[in-house]
Amino acid sequence: MSVPTTTTGVSTRSGPAAATDFERGVLNFSAGPAVLPESVLRQARHDLWDIAGTGIGILEHSHRGPVFDRVIEEAEADCRRLAGIGDDFAVLFLQGGASLQFAMIPANFLADGATAEYAITGVWAKKAAEAAALYGSVHVPFDGKGSGYDHTPARSEMTTAPAAAYFHYCSNNTIYGTRWQAPPVSDHPLVADTSSEMFSRRYDFARHAIIYAGAQKNLGPAGVTLVIIRRDLLDRAVRKLPPMLSYAVHAKDGSRHNTPPTFGIYLMGLVFRWIEAQGGLDAVERRNEEKAAVLYRAIDESGGFYRGVARPDCRSTMNVTFRTPSPALDDRFADEAAKHGMDGLKGHRSAGGLRASIYNAFPASGCATLAQFMRAFAAANG
Amino acid sequence: MSVPTTTTGVSTRSGPAAATDFERGVLNFSAGPAVLPESVLRQARHDLWDIAGTGIGILEHSHRGPVFDRVIEEAEADCRRLAGIGDDFAVLFLQGGASLQFAMIPANFLADGATAEYAITGVWAKKAAEAAALYGSVHVPFDGKGSGYDHTPARSEMTTAPAAAYFHYCSNNTIYGTRWQAPPVSDHPLVADTSSEMFSRRYDFARHAIIYAGAQKNLGPAGVTLVIIRRDLLDRAVRKLPPMLSYAVHAKDGSRHNTPPTFGIYLMGLVFRWIEAQGGLDAVERRNEEKAAVLYRAIDESGGFYRGVARPDCRSTMNVTFRTPSPALDDRFADEAAKHGMDGLKGHRSAGGLRASIYNAFPASGCATLAQFMRAFAAANG
Repeated sequence: MSVPTTTTGVSTRSGPAAATDFERGVLNFSAGPAVLPESVLRQARHDLWDIAGTGIGILEHSHRGPVFDRVIEEAEADCRRLAGIGDDFAVLFLQGGASLQFAMIPANFLADGATAEYAITGVWAKKAAEAAALYGSVHVPFDGKGSGYDHTPARSEMTTAPAAAYFHYCSNNTIYGTRWQAPPVSDHPLVADTSSEMFSRRYDFARHAIIYAGAQKNLGPAGVTLVIIRRDLLDRAVRKLPPMLSYAVHAKDGSRHNTPPTFGIYLMGLVFRWIEAQGGLDAVERRNEEKAAVLYRAIDESGGFYRGVARPDCRSTMNVTFRTPSPALDDRFADEAAKHGMDGLKGHRSAGGLRASIYNAFPASGCATLAQFMRAFAAANG
Repeated sequence: MSVPTTTTGVSTRSGPAAATDFERGVLNFSAGPAVLPESVLRQARHDLWDIAGTGIGILEHSHRGPVFDRVIEEAEADCRRLAGIGDDFAVLFLQGGASLQFAMIPANFLADGATAEYAITGVWAKKAAEAAALYGSVHVPFDGKGSGYDHTPARSEMTTAPAAAYFHYCSNNTIYGTRWQAPPVSDHPLVADTSSEMFSRRYDFARHAIIYAGAQKNLGPAGVTLVIIRRDLLDRAVRKLPPMLSYAVHAKDGSRHNTPPTFGIYLMGLVFRWIEAQGGLDAVERRNEEKAAVLYRAIDESGGFYRGVARPDCRSTMNVTFRTPSPALDDRFADEAAKHGMDGLKGHRSAGGLRASIYNAFPASGCATLAQFMRAFAAANG
């Protein structure tokens, strides 16, 4: 395997990546941390030793030096271009994953006695609501528990609070494999946890007040969180907070209030470039739909052997969830698939069943391989 | 350059590293993120593509899978061995750097109306005290501002509060190049920010209630924070907190309440192994003393051309701070040194002057090179 060499400037650019970027053979269906583009890994292997001909690796450069200046500036610019957002938003690279955002959002914007809306479409959405309840009142417009979190709600299914600081939802539910086909309609500012589908499709990012995503599913390594926040919110914090929990501080200091997770930001920047090299969000979305359709077809055409967890109109293109006729067969499926080089197909421990996470970097050929395996397994065990 | 291949098990073991681990030529004096052992980088380059023969890279493995199970278990075990601590302490790998610890410590342990002691020996110690003041009262036993933060206090210089939840100090002050030669004596539980010197010397870790260190100086990449905390403190939180700010939650969930910074933990584990391969803390400490002595000698024998910032009895072995006769000459020094392959010698923007950060992974030969340059520069400009 050849490691590409950087010839000029700071090498946050990955080379043009083939759509068949898939050398290692093992199919990694992990829900996150998850598969990354191999061209990104190649570039990272190079830059770990020496980035941009400096004789110093990306892990070892000061977060205030010229090399990292360019890394973070380019990552931010590329993110803005992909998201289609301008200077009315701040783009922040933070730590603590979506889980710290669960606390930071209400800490900053939900005053004592005020109400925020939290649509509960799965475990993570519920955790966000629980963290908010420590700071103010939570109104739940929809709770999918009764229907096994098999769908995201239509507007008619939701109640609404007369006044709310914001409406929080999880755009793609990793565990159940459901998604909101479009942002919900609400009279209140929209706040979205997009961790498991960020930049997997065109989306109306600019309609939101805050969008956030832990990187480790579709954007990069664990340990960096992308936060896109409307600037006019920054000076509206409802309580005094330590600097590390204040969006205003992070925005003022350009995500460098303290030492940021430099490698995570660097790698996220490489992934942004890779998405552009793939043809941008339109091309990535089309490919993701095709990939998911291959698996959903294998479910729907199995004569009932496989049952999809998500209601068909709410199916995710990132996490395809399904069950065989029994938990014992689910286990056998995962074990046999692993023997065929397909890793990480067991469902989340809270939901059971099977789950194929097929993020942007997951190769289309891998979906075909799994679909073929599904058909053979059903024939042998049906 | 050959990339070592893992033959068995999970490759968190770096190969035996030569003390002269220094191939790249550029001398990286950055205060952090900072130089890492080259053998660690070699192993990471390998494992980024494929760790332990799994066909999946370290960035892409689930944080709940068997590979990462071993990575985090080994990192914790190695940390315990280096620190000489047992099961009465929890070892946590968190996010947010020392700066988030500045908030988490008082949020967990400083009740409204209660007092904590904060010795202010520099900018970071002061920031810790400021964050604490959001939660309770802060008593300052010592403030080094009047003496330009040139030393850490003797016991006789400190006032004491009759009752305090804890005594917080920063064991090594990166910006000023001072350190506490030994942990302070206090009637209150000791809490230490050891970010810029963790595992650079033997230290009485077990005498502390909490020790924490952002990794990016002496332990690994930015984005992971090592926290060693006495277990009996875990159930003594003084207020209800969101899970991500609760030490009890992180301890109960083994640093995996949410997705942890898997790569940072992996790399920190490699660095722990590297320290052991160097002969452990005794050997590392001896080498660090020798390295620092080379530079302090160049300062002290310059006939007054260089002035050390730190009082000699409080000198750090990690950050050697000094000034030439003028700020203009400081700049020229840094510029000329850079031309000779010595990077990152400018002092912190808040302090000016010059600073050579020579963490564990910085080669001894680099200190000799800098000392030689210092003598030549003084001769040419004195």
